[in-house]
Amino acid sequence: MATPRPAPEWRVARWLNAPAPIALADLRGKAVLAVAFQMLCPGCVAHGLPQAMRARDTFSEADLAVVGLHTVFEHHEAQGNERALAAFLHEYRIRFPVGMDDPDPEHAIPATMRAYRMEGTPTTILIDRQGNIRLQTFGHLDDMRLGALIASLVAEPREPATASPADTACGGVGCRPPVSG
Amino acid sequence: MATPRPAPEWRVARWLNAPAPIALADLRGKAVLAVAFQMLCPGCVAHGLPQAMRARDTFSEADLAVVGLHTVFEHHEAQGNERALAAFLHEYRIRFPVGMDDPDPEHAIPATMRAYRMEGTPTTILIDRQGNIRLQTFGHLDDMRLGALIASLVAEPREPATASPADTACGGVGCRPPVSG
Amino acid sequence: MATPRPAPEWRVARWLNAPAPIALADLRGKAVLAVAFQMLCPGCVAHGLPQAMRARDTFSEADLAVVGLHTVFEHHEAQGNERALAAFLHEYRIRFPVGMDDPDPEHAIPATMRAYRMEGTPTTILIDRQGNIRLQTFGHLDDMRLGALIASLVAEPREPATASPADTACGGVGCRPPVSG
Amino acid sequence: MATPRPAPEWRVARWLNAPAPIALADLRGKAVLAVAFQMLCPGCVAHGLPQAMRARDTFSEADLAVVGLHTVFEHHEAQGNERALAAFLHEYRIRFPVGMDDPDPEHAIPATMRAYRMEGTPTTILIDRQGNIRLQTFGHLDDMRLGALIASLVAEPREPATASPADTACGGVGCRPPVSG
Repeated sequence: MATPRPAPEWRVARWLNAPAPIALADLRGKAVLAVAFQMLCPGCVAHGLPQAMRARDTFSEADLAVVGLHTVFEHHEAQGNERALAAFLHEYRIRFPVGMDDPDPEHAIPATMRAYRMEGTPTTILIDRQGNIRLQTFGHLDDMRLGALIASLVAEPREPATASPADTACGGVGCRPPVSG
Repeated sequence: MATPRPAPEWRVARWLNAPAPIALADLRGKAVLAVAFQMLCPGCVAHGLPQAMRARDTFSEADLAVVGLHTVFEHHEAQGNERALAAFLHEYRIRFPVGMDDPDPEHAIPATMRAYRMEGTPTTILIDRQGNIRLQTFGHLDDMRLGALIASLVAEPREPATASPADTACGGVGCRPPVSG
Repeated sequence: MATPRPAPEWRVARWLNAPAPIALADLRGKAVLAVAFQMLCPGCVAHGLPQAMRARDTFSEADLAVVGLHTVFEHHEAQGNERALAAFLHEYRIRFPVGMDDPDPEHAIPATMRAYRMEGTPTTILIDRQGNIRLQTFGHLDDMRLGALIASLVAEPREPATASPADTACGGVGCRPPVSG
Repeated sequence: MATPRPAPEWRVARWLNAPAPIALADLRGKAVLAVAFQMLCPGCVAHGLPQAMRARDTFSEADLAVVGLHTVFEHHEAQGNERALAAFLHEYRIRFPVGMDDPDPEHAIPATMRAYRMEGTPTTILIDRQGNIRLQTFGHLDDMRLGALIASLVAEPREPATASPADTACGGVGCRPPVSG
């Protein structure tokens, strides 16, 4: 497997379905399923969002956080305001937290979408308990495979089994010399 | 069969996907499938609108007119503007004419929706070649039945089998004075 | 439209779900939907047969006859016996009459399948009230189109608009001698 | 969690899609998905078997064994012979091993179905790397949940992490005193 890539912090202008802003660091220790969508994207409405809702129903909140990111990169005037998104979430009965990706006056593509180099919507992202990206997929992903991937992240220990080089040299199982390189 | 009920004229503030406003009278001689929807109504997006698109693909323009009516009765601020609807029609590749039902400042329910006494969205309406309502259904209708209903209207003669009052004074059931108007 | 082709009589070894053998001539005056299938054909089980069942539910028995033809052309030992077919019809709740296409000891392909020159299963055949084939399709056909086609046949008059030669010698276009045999 | 229940050995008259008989003990160390079905059971054909095929495609053979059990408890004459089942597996492109559950001349219900106390078909059974039943469900199970369950079994160690009381005192990681009660 490739070297794990730490998930960039998301940049969210406003959160819906959440009592307070959610930083990625707040979710450390859980696996995270983030689905980037646009309310007027047919593939998001037909596949990406219903799948995220099924994931929310399948896994416990203690093990998995499910978060939507509204990454508007077109039709800003139609999709870009909070009232439109709130009405959409209400009608589609989406109850998990949704962050409005921070628009950038100089780019059509908003900040988080750029930071993650997403190709479009829907994009499905899986982040492990240590905060590393383990999957990022544009488009369709089948339910069985996604369920299996989430469960394998959930089955990982909350603390890394062996200390990583960036950590101190001592982990839960003992001490070892720092790894060079 | 019940006495045919003439379809009320629709009241449309603005037409999209149409070079000019469309009056019901302009469609006389064709069968008409009208689907009333809201862009944030899940049942419209999943069923009503795709079915209307299939009807558009199945029947010729010479026999059947397919028209959408955007009957916004909730979330007016999110759905009620032309740019939002235009973006929606673009993303969902809806090419048939769509009229924005005339909002009424005194009612949540817009004018055409009230005139037809629709129960909600999606509502599917079939109008025959003479301009009479032959079906009005709230919710789901299966494809085979709708295809059969449309075809049976298409198979009817363009002119009524028995003369209508406006033509001559005597019809199949007797005579009556000509209607002025 | 091409010259109508009279539907060949089917050759059936045995009927299930029917009190007596059904000849095509017995159905004259009705439209007929015949679906040729094999019980071990996945496309028949997933699409062809459920569609025929929906047609049976959508149209009246007075207007449309729905008939299955079990045209076994492979796995004869597994599909070719009446008990297997009866169990299949029972489990799939198929209630319309099904004829077992007459096997031919010299051909893998049974008699009716050969007479109609079917390409495979499922094959959907529509026969009009006069006994002419109006549609024969191998594979998938969408519900709206099939519903429309059946309804257009149902809307046709029971008697031809112009008398056929076998009826009287004079039709709308002139007179001709009666045809013998 | 309840005390793990060891999966009873299956009793199979004949295997298809397998070069040799497969005993449960041969699969020890892998997770096992067993799907009990009948070839004329509509729910098996529409849901249970396609789901097992998706599981076969999703997980590696090293981690998960997928096995079908043809548990004929009705229509024995139509479904009970090997040629019919072989034709069915061929047409539905089922490539994983399928065992014909041992018929019992004194019972309609075959031996393995009785040993597992299955309620009907389809029945989905998950067995862990130690040979214990972890799930047994009659009817429909959604893909995401099944994918998650399989992945969680796959993530378990091949050898139990701590020796169980019933084992000897020495496991792979060393020796320890037997646990009392």
